[in-house]
Amino acid sequence: MPVENGEFVRRILDTVGGRWPLLVLAHLDGGPRRYRELEQVLTGISQRMLTLTLHRLGEDGLISRASFAEMPPRVEYSLTPLGKSLLDAAAGLVRWVSDHHSAIDRARRPGR
Amino acid sequence: MPVENGEFVRRILDTVGGRWPLLVLAHLDGGPRRYRELEQVLTGISQRMLTLTLHRLGEDGLISRASFAEMPPRVEYSLTPLGKSLLDAAAGLVRWVSDHHSAIDRARRPGR
Repeated sequence: MPVENGEFVRRILDTVGGRWPLLVLAHLDGGPRRYRELEQVLTGISQRMLTLTLHRLGEDGLISRASFAEMPPRVEYSLTPLGKSLLDAAAGLVRWVSDHHSAIDRARRPGR
Repeated sequence: MPVENGEFVRRILDTVGGRWPLLVLAHLDGGPRRYRELEQVLTGISQRMLTLTLHRLGEDGLISRASFAEMPPRVEYSLTPLGKSLLDAAAGLVRWVSDHHSAIDRARRPGR
C-alpha cells in the first residue's frame, strides 16, 4: 500500500482520525438526524465537540445541514454521497477492529 | 454499518486515529526497518513521537522489535501478521482519501 507522507495522509487522519467524525457519520447512515438526537446517541461527546465535528464534516462536504422554517425551527443533518462513500471505505477498518480488538487486548496484557 | 459507541470504536481511533500509526505501519509494509530509517522517511515526526508510536504499536501487537548483538547493536522493527491485517483493512480508507482528497479540497473552498 503506497503511502506518500504529507498532505493527503494527514487528511485521512484529520477527516476520520479524530475520536468522533467516524461515529457521527455512522449514526447518520440511518438517515437524517437532529442535533439533540446525535447528542443523545453519542454518549460522552461534549456540545462543543459535537458542534465542531458537525461543522468540520460539513466543511469537508461529508454531511449537509437543512433547516426548516417551523416553530420552533428544525435543523437536520444528513450524509452526503461523499460522506456515505467515506463511511463505506472505513467499514473495512471498523470491521477489522470489531474482529480484532480482543487480540489487541491480549497483546496489551503484561507478560503476554 | 452498525457502530456501537464505546470502547471498541475508541480503539479504532486510538489504534489508527493518531497522525502517525498508520504511516509507520505502511512504511513497515516493505519489510523490517531500523529506527533511523523510519525517522528519515517519516518527515515531520519528532523522535519522541516516533519512539511513542513504535512503543504503542508494539504494545498492541501490531509490530515486533528484534535486536541483534552486533557492534554497534542493531534493532529492527517489523509488521506482525496482526499489523499487516490492520494495514490491509485500512487500505480501503487510504485509497478513499487518495481518490477523494480533491473533492474535499473543493468542498473546503469558501463560497463553493
